[in-house]
Amino acid sequence: MLTFSSPAQMGHAPLLELVNGAAEDHAETPARLANMLTMAGTVEAPGDHGLAPILAVHDHDYVAFLKDAHAAWLAAGRTGDAIGYAFPVRARRPLALDRIDGKLGQYGFDTVTPIAAGTWEAVHGAAQAAIAAAEAVVSGRSDKAFALCRPPGHHAGRDYFGGYCYLNNAAIAARLAVARGAGPVAVLDVDYHHGNGTQDIFYADGDVFFASIHADPRTDFPYFWGHADERGAGEGEGANLNLPLPRGTDWRSYESVLATAMEAIARFGARTLIVSYGADTFAEDPISQFSLSTQDMQRMGTMIGAAGLPTIAVMEGGYNVAALGRNVAAFIAGLEGG
Amino acid sequence: MLTFSSPAQMGHAPLLELVNGAAEDHAETPARLANMLTMAGTVEAPGDHGLAPILAVHDHDYVAFLKDAHAAWLAAGRTGDAIGYAFPVRARRPLALDRIDGKLGQYGFDTVTPIAAGTWEAVHGAAQAAIAAAEAVVSGRSDKAFALCRPPGHHAGRDYFGGYCYLNNAAIAARLAVARGAGPVAVLDVDYHHGNGTQDIFYADGDVFFASIHADPRTDFPYFWGHADERGAGEGEGANLNLPLPRGTDWRSYESVLATAMEAIARFGARTLIVSYGADTFAEDPISQFSLSTQDMQRMGTMIGAAGLPTIAVMEGGYNVAALGRNVAAFIAGLEGG
Ligand SMILES: [Zn+2]
Ligand SMILES: [Zn+2]
Repeated sequence: MLTFSSPAQMGHAPLLELVNGAAEDHAETPARLANMLTMAGTVEAPGDHGLAPILAVHDHDYVAFLKDAHAAWLAAGRTGDAIGYAFPVRARRPLALDRIDGKLGQYGFDTVTPIAAGTWEAVHGAAQAAIAAAEAVVSGRSDKAFALCRPPGHHAGRDYFGGYCYLNNAAIAARLAVARGAGPVAVLDVDYHHGNGTQDIFYADGDVFFASIHADPRTDFPYFWGHADERGAGEGEGANLNLPLPRGTDWRSYESVLATAMEAIARFGARTLIVSYGADTFAEDPISQFSLSTQDMQRMGTMIGAAGLPTIAVMEGGYNVAALGRNVAAFIAGLEGG
Repeated sequence: MLTFSSPAQMGHAPLLELVNGAAEDHAETPARLANMLTMAGTVEAPGDHGLAPILAVHDHDYVAFLKDAHAAWLAAGRTGDAIGYAFPVRARRPLALDRIDGKLGQYGFDTVTPIAAGTWEAVHGAAQAAIAAAEAVVSGRSDKAFALCRPPGHHAGRDYFGGYCYLNNAAIAARLAVARGAGPVAVLDVDYHHGNGTQDIFYADGDVFFASIHADPRTDFPYFWGHADERGAGEGEGANLNLPLPRGTDWRSYESVLATAMEAIARFGARTLIVSYGADTFAEDPISQFSLSTQDMQRMGTMIGAAGLPTIAVMEGGYNVAALGRNVAAFIAGLEGG
């Protein structure tokens, strides 16, 4: 399995997240990537494929905002990381806002996704890792590739960040695959949390099927998206499949729902598969509530690999840092047919 | 001038607001009301007019949420005040969410509006003060009345809280006046911040004209609403007038814009006037950036009183606590024709 990661990804180190009514230590740390690298074997640095594959998914003004936001925060006399506090829940529309606090709300949807000094370089590096993995597969260099993305991407939409995510690495890989004639493409999201950004990006897109297995948003982030009745729109009608599961879900239940997702992907006729892999389904994850073991991660990889599709996997969440590399390695071993 | 305030209003004492990337002391304190009461002369406690006038403006499920939110927060094992962290900026819709964190986002739009133990009793009391003031005027008992509301209300919409506001006292008074045959009604909002909740409630309503003079939302909260191109919709088309002004605005500029607003209200043919009065236009307000003096507050009251309309004024913001009672008293003196 070819594996990609950029050294720039270590530079994103958010200090705090505003959650539980307070300022808490941030769960999405550089140590996550460090632990994955100890277990990952040979890792290639991606080349720089530039902004074009990113701008094929994300809004130009949003990308400009991401690049500039921390500098604007400091220019406004602030210290620490840039975090919004007010959000356009009604009648969101393009606006020429001047104040960084307003822009943070305009382009964000939560207070747990700070923009720190190294954020742009890191998210750009993570996106390049996803692009390199996609290039490796669509070029035929490899049948499967894994991008050790961090920060994750699946909560980020065309023009918004949130859920620790800034650029949607899975969506960037999917759109690249479609553009290079490797479609139709399916994105399978097995992170504990619903991939609302990916869903939103492809909601009306008939070229990309999105299937997500995740904790029921009635009890878990991102709450407002990931419900079973969200089935796509327009040309994407029926090409969005949400499979929410209750807290406490173990492998036995998970396996049958994963089988349902794989059948739907086969029925769609996908020729390339993108996997948003999050290890936060692990029983000992500190912020999540499923009951999968490390061995289950391998079983999951095996079932997905059995589809026999060219596959680009990108890393999403997983917050038990000590077990993260082990869980990723188990998933990769399964995916490789091990 | 009849003046109303409920003792329950003192019970809302939020600890923190999550703003500027951190947890800061809350600016909207019980001391604000205490200072106003020292300058207010005779203050009547409102009777309890029940929930009906509140439910004429606010969504039933939202009101049930407000009543229950702090208890649900404690039941989830939390301490302190309930504050959301994720917000439905895309495709907001009614959802049956189970977790209090999700509900706080579903019904809120910021992280500066905590729900504390005494919040419901206080906002209910503030609404009752507004209702009592409206009753006093529409019944003909008095030509003018002032409700010393606190917490404020003008940022709260039909089914959302934010900007230190939970129930929209001005909207409740306006709808009561229309229901009692005292319409058409105009709401004039002279708080430093745009009254986005009031605008939203009456946006498609031809019975209520809304005019707001406020800091340009390109630089100031609430950012996403209050722009000059928001002019109403449907039957309310043309009945919404936003007059944003730059930071640093002094009385000279303010006066001519207030004259514009008063002319528009006269043209609309309003028979009753609701005023959302905020003292945060004061030069020494700690969180705002206009340059009005206490004497200017009296001038403002005089210009508004000169319309000769039955008038119900409700208190909104103003965060220079030591000067608050003085500024309110000056405004009332002007309104009374003093
Ligand atoms: Zn996750
Ligand atoms: Zn204000």
